[in-house]
Amino acid sequence: MKKNMIITIGRQFGSGGREIGMGLSEALGIPFYDKELIVAAAKKSGLSEAMFEHVDEKAANSLLYSLVLGAYTPSNALSGMPPVYMNETLFRIQSDVICDLANEGPCVIVGRCADYILRERDDCINLFVHAPLTHRIERVLDTCDVTKEKVEDLIAKTDKKRANFYNYYTGQKWGEAKNYHISLDSSLLGVDGWVKALAQTL
Amino acid sequence: MKKNMIITIGRQFGSGGREIGMGLSEALGIPFYDKELIVAAAKKSGLSEAMFEHVDEKAANSLLYSLVLGAYTPSNALSGMPPVYMNETLFRIQSDVICDLANEGPCVIVGRCADYILRERDDCINLFVHAPLTHRIERVLDTCDVTKEKVEDLIAKTDKKRANFYNYYTGQKWGEAKNYHISLDSSLLGVDGWVKALAQTL
Repeated sequence: MKKNMIITIGRQFGSGGREIGMGLSEALGIPFYDKELIVAAAKKSGLSEAMFEHVDEKAANSLLYSLVLGAYTPSNALSGMPPVYMNETLFRIQSDVICDLANEGPCVIVGRCADYILRERDDCINLFVHAPLTHRIERVLDTCDVTKEKVEDLIAKTDKKRANFYNYYTGQKWGEAKNYHISLDSSLLGVDGWVKALAQTL
Repeated sequence: MKKNMIITIGRQFGSGGREIGMGLSEALGIPFYDKELIVAAAKKSGLSEAMFEHVDEKAANSLLYSLVLGAYTPSNALSGMPPVYMNETLFRIQSDVICDLANEGPCVIVGRCADYILRERDDCINLFVHAPLTHRIERVLDTCDVTKEKVEDLIAKTDKKRANFYNYYTGQKWGEAKNYHISLDSSLLGVDGWVKALAQTL
C-alpha cells in the first residue's frame, strides 16, 4: 500500500479508536488530531473554542438543539444568524480546517466526518473501530468518571450522537462497513496489537 | 491472536471475498467451504442438491418465494410441509452442517450466516469483504458471463438477496461493521495483498 497516507478514524465510544489513532500517529511519526481540531477551528475563525466544543460531533437537525445553540452569541459575523445556519457554518469551518491539515501532509484525524470531508483525495485510509459492549463498558469504567449504573446509558447516548452527526452531514450510515477501508474489533488484538498490525500494513 | 481459528467470510458480490477465503485456506492449510456446503447439506439430509441450490442464501419471508419453493417436492419427510417451514428446515440442516464442519477443526466458511450460526464459539474470526462499485463491476465482467448493460443490476440484486437472507435469519444487519471482527475494502491491497496481511495477523 502507498506510504504517507492520511488516516481517518471513526469509532464507537469506548472502543479505543482514539488510542489506536494515537498509537499510529506515534508509530508512523505523523501528527494526531482529535479535540485539537476544535482549537484549530477556533483559531482559524476567530470564534471561541466553547462554541465549537458545544456543537462538536452533534447533528443540527433538531429545533430544540438549534434553540440551545442559539444561546451562544458570537461576537462577529455569525451574530444574528438563525441557529441552524450557525451550526452548519461551524461545521463548514471545521471542514475547512480538516482540508487544510490534510493538505499539510500525512496525519491521523479522529471523528468529525473526516472520511467524508476528504473523500475526493486518493491518499486517505478510512478506519472504523468498534468492540463488543462488555469490552467497551470495561474500558469506559477504567477511563471515565462514570458509575456502573450509568455507563451503558453514556455509551448508547454518545454513539447515537456520533451516528446522528455522521448520518446528517454525510448522507451515509455511520458504522456501515462499506464506508471505510478497514473496520476492526479492537478487542481482537487489543490497542497495541492493532497499532502494530496496521502500521505494518499501511 | 490465537491460531487454529475458524474464519467466516461475508462478502459483497464481486468484492473478491471468496478468493480471499480461498487464499487464506491455502496459506493456512485449512479446508474451504462455499458451494461445498450445499453438497454436504444434501449428503447429510438425503435431499437433492438442487433443493439446497434453490434456497441458497435466499430469505424465506415472501409468500411468492414460498410458493415457488413449493414447486419442489422432496421424496421424504419434508413432503407435504408448507413451503415456508420447508425453507426454514433446509436452513436448519445447512446450519447443522456448518456446526459439524466447525467441530471438525479450523476452516474457512463463505456466506450462509456462518458468523451468526457459530456465534457461541470463541474460536471464530468473522470477516466482511467489500469494494467500491467500479472495482466490483470490473471483477464481475472479468469473471462472470454478463454484459456491461446488466452487470450493475446483477450486483445490486445479488447483494440485496444476500442482505435479505442475512437480516432475516440473524436479526442483525448485513455489512454493518460491528457484526464482524474485520471488514475490509479488497481494492486497498488486492486479493493477494489481503491474504498475506491477514495470514500474518491471524
